[in-house]
Amino acid sequence: MKAPLHIIKIGGRLINDPKSLDAFLNAFQRVSTPKILVHGGGRKATELSALLGIETRMIDGRRITNKETLEVAVMVYAGLINKTIVARLQALDINAIGLSGADADTVRATKRPVREVDYGYVGDIERVADGALQALLNSGITPVLCAISHDGSGQLLNTNADTIAAQVAIALSTSYQVHLSYCFEYPGVLYDIDAPELTMSTISEGEFINMKTSGTVNSGMIPKLSNGFDSLKGGVHEVHVCGIDNLTTRDRATLLHL
Amino acid sequence: MKAPLHIIKIGGRLINDPKSLDAFLNAFQRVSTPKILVHGGGRKATELSALLGIETRMIDGRRITNKETLEVAVMVYAGLINKTIVARLQALDINAIGLSGADADTVRATKRPVREVDYGYVGDIERVADGALQALLNSGITPVLCAISHDGSGQLLNTNADTIAAQVAIALSTSYQVHLSYCFEYPGVLYDIDAPELTMSTISEGEFINMKTSGTVNSGMIPKLSNGFDSLKGGVHEVHVCGIDNLTTRDRATLLHL
Repeated sequence: MKAPLHIIKIGGRLINDPKSLDAFLNAFQRVSTPKILVHGGGRKATELSALLGIETRMIDGRRITNKETLEVAVMVYAGLINKTIVARLQALDINAIGLSGADADTVRATKRPVREVDYGYVGDIERVADGALQALLNSGITPVLCAISHDGSGQLLNTNADTIAAQVAIALSTSYQVHLSYCFEYPGVLYDIDAPELTMSTISEGEFINMKTSGTVNSGMIPKLSNGFDSLKGGVHEVHVCGIDNLTTRDRATLLHL
Repeated sequence: MKAPLHIIKIGGRLINDPKSLDAFLNAFQRVSTPKILVHGGGRKATELSALLGIETRMIDGRRITNKETLEVAVMVYAGLINKTIVARLQALDINAIGLSGADADTVRATKRPVREVDYGYVGDIERVADGALQALLNSGITPVLCAISHDGSGQLLNTNADTIAAQVAIALSTSYQVHLSYCFEYPGVLYDIDAPELTMSTISEGEFINMKTSGTVNSGMIPKLSNGFDSLKGGVHEVHVCGIDNLTTRDRATLLHL
């Protein structure tokens, strides 16, 4: 039987607030090892861009990453947020190591081809170095991955953290029984944003497709769920959407199934 | 006999210019493995601070690191510069991993005590995790260290890159025959800044002290040489000051001796 591995993705909103980040890190400490943390960006990149006078361009709700935006993303995601998290985990006696996709070649991507839209320096994942991650896990180290990948030719790229979590989970599922959790500001997938106490205990891919069609699923939820279903199809054992308080208990969390 | 290990520190001025950074990385590729790269900050942190309206405070030629300056240092050193270097090394087929001192607890420091001057978030190195670095080297990985350490209680700290190079070299000299090189914009220590073609082939600690007293040594040279002599006393096999073109040949480089 494969050994269990927990991969937890923490969303940007939880990172924005120092209190909720601390609460999350304390909850993450209680997750049994081996484990991997994947984090998103948070508001800081947008704030820094604004301070530097870099315009944030969105097309169909997706950010366009030009050279300046990429620099900011690398500074904030791989620098400030990643190292802040790693230093705090060290204080909680978790021997963490922060990684961009370039580090130990962990996440290699190709720049998204220009079709109708030129997304700029955005990378679609090509492969995950499961061997390198496994070697770290085997030495008792907890990898902390940020949303930056590279193309193998010297170019850093911006890559969605939900997708990184899913692709890392899939790659490691050949060696581990992978439990993937998307941790965000609610305890699970909501039926109704105005009734945040009521979460779905399970969600099937069919239900998800219906919710997308009817527009009853929140736009921030779509990448989590769609990457979650991809993970299940790719061999990941279990995928949950949950909050900080139920990260370990999974009480009121939403379990994905195909 | 101990296996050789090359530790190369690259200065900020070489990082500022993309052409010289590329030339350096190509030279670094030719250095035999195992090897470690330690990099300084460059102009980018000062530029970013200026853009953000953060005042750079200096006391006796030393930068004071307040909370905002530290954030910028973490973003630029551990984020932008470190990941740019790592991605380019990957393109040169060097499996690099970028590390701040918090990552895998590699460089732990204590915040410098306030005496006459409060340097702010500056760390004096307490210990280097030679075991973690050795494990990476043994798996064929090349660590790339930036000038950020941590205190083990969740606080990141700014630490001089010359000192990090020296302390890492000392820590690893129990297991390796360590060759430490301080690589900067001249081929070696100059007798006279106006005659840059003339380098000293060797320099003793006594000569260095005399040069400091007479004021004939450049201020940027002092931390390199003083850390270099510390390294020799700490068991490092060989310390050179050199440039990009003579990084591997050491032709015209300056060899330190006690």
